[in-house]
Amino acid sequence: MQRLLGVLGGMGPLATVDFFRKVVEETQATVDQEHIPLIIDSVPQIPCRVAAVLREGESPVPQMLSGIMRLKKAGAECIAIACNTAHYWYDDLCEQGGMPILHIVDAVATELERTARADAPLGLLATEATLEARIYQSRLAQREIDFIINTPEERAELILPAIALVKQGKPQQGGELLDHALGLLQERGAGQYVLACTELPVAVDAVSSLHRAHCIDATRALAKASVRWSLQT
Amino acid sequence: MQRLLGVLGGMGPLATVDFFRKVVEETQATVDQEHIPLIIDSVPQIPCRVAAVLREGESPVPQMLSGIMRLKKAGAECIAIACNTAHYWYDDLCEQGGMPILHIVDAVATELERTARADAPLGLLATEATLEARIYQSRLAQREIDFIINTPEERAELILPAIALVKQGKPQQGGELLDHALGLLQERGAGQYVLACTELPVAVDAVSSLHRAHCIDATRALAKASVRWSLQT
Repeated sequence: MQRLLGVLGGMGPLATVDFFRKVVEETQATVDQEHIPLIIDSVPQIPCRVAAVLREGESPVPQMLSGIMRLKKAGAECIAIACNTAHYWYDDLCEQGGMPILHIVDAVATELERTARADAPLGLLATEATLEARIYQSRLAQREIDFIINTPEERAELILPAIALVKQGKPQQGGELLDHALGLLQERGAGQYVLACTELPVAVDAVSSLHRAHCIDATRALAKASVRWSLQT
Repeated sequence: MQRLLGVLGGMGPLATVDFFRKVVEETQATVDQEHIPLIIDSVPQIPCRVAAVLREGESPVPQMLSGIMRLKKAGAECIAIACNTAHYWYDDLCEQGGMPILHIVDAVATELERTARADAPLGLLATEATLEARIYQSRLAQREIDFIINTPEERAELILPAIALVKQGKPQQGGELLDHALGLLQERGAGQYVLACTELPVAVDAVSSLHRAHCIDATRALAKASVRWSLQT
């Protein structure tokens, strides 16, 4: 018997669509009934997470808790959050929501345990807000995983424009910039990469990047963890 | 202020992903917060709708009502059902669910009103179960819209295999069969087509069919109706 997972989405809506699709793709199923049961809250009227992390805007926590409460009322037993930056408030959401929440970085770490390369550091590709929130750094350090990141200039000139281009419906142009950012981390020794923003996998999929095979997609990692949780495996 | 729409999905899960994506695409929005709020129930443990319509399996109504109840508890004010065949039980679901439900054929009819061609009948492409359920025939007849359908042989040799190929991840091969089925309806006078099964738009999008511009996608029509309802326009 599969367990009912609640998905806190809407940050943004297309990233939630992408997460939902990856949950379906990552389920071994030949008929509808073998897919895992989900209830998805995609209520995008949540204050901007980036502004809040950078202390330039109001907290999104009350609206995120409202979403968790809607999912709880509907019968969800556990939550997945389809947004990297939102994990900045993970402890508050667990405590005030009263529900277990799968952590996106734990899901990434599970993928790293399967494919880990001890000989080379990990390249971590993320937005300023996700880095500022330190959700990856602290959990990777706990696992003694070495990582390197792009310089502030590279983030400003390659990663942020790549994300913006995906949001504008130009993933191929975004993918070219991202491929360049991946190449710079490779030159500095990275052997594997984590795409720690929901737009980045969309960009890299749109181009024939030689780095694609060495990238861990955080969205897909969370989708896999969600399927495992539902099936209790 | 946007109103919260509940989506009864899971029939099947990928069709629900497709519907969700089309809702996002059909919303005029420049930031996350302008997208409409949705809560999606994708619990695929629902008995097969096709078998039930053909009186060869148990009723899916109790499970569909459970989904509507979950959405109601979560605060949804209206329901959209991301499955054509499920509308066979529309009256029961409205009555027993105690919630307004957007009807997929009404959504298609709204699109037809905008693009109607009085000079040629409509070609209706659907499964045996959707035709047997008569959800399209009765509502099109009420609006005095003439329509033609494929022969049983064409459905068996072209439409059903096209749907199966999409479910197997081969939309291009499915699209070639569907293009042939569209061409046969054109030879018999059809000037416009309704793709009344959630797999058919995926197939036609995968090939460069000359008929594409004359096809109404029932999934997208319901997505547009959902956005209009939420924005009360």
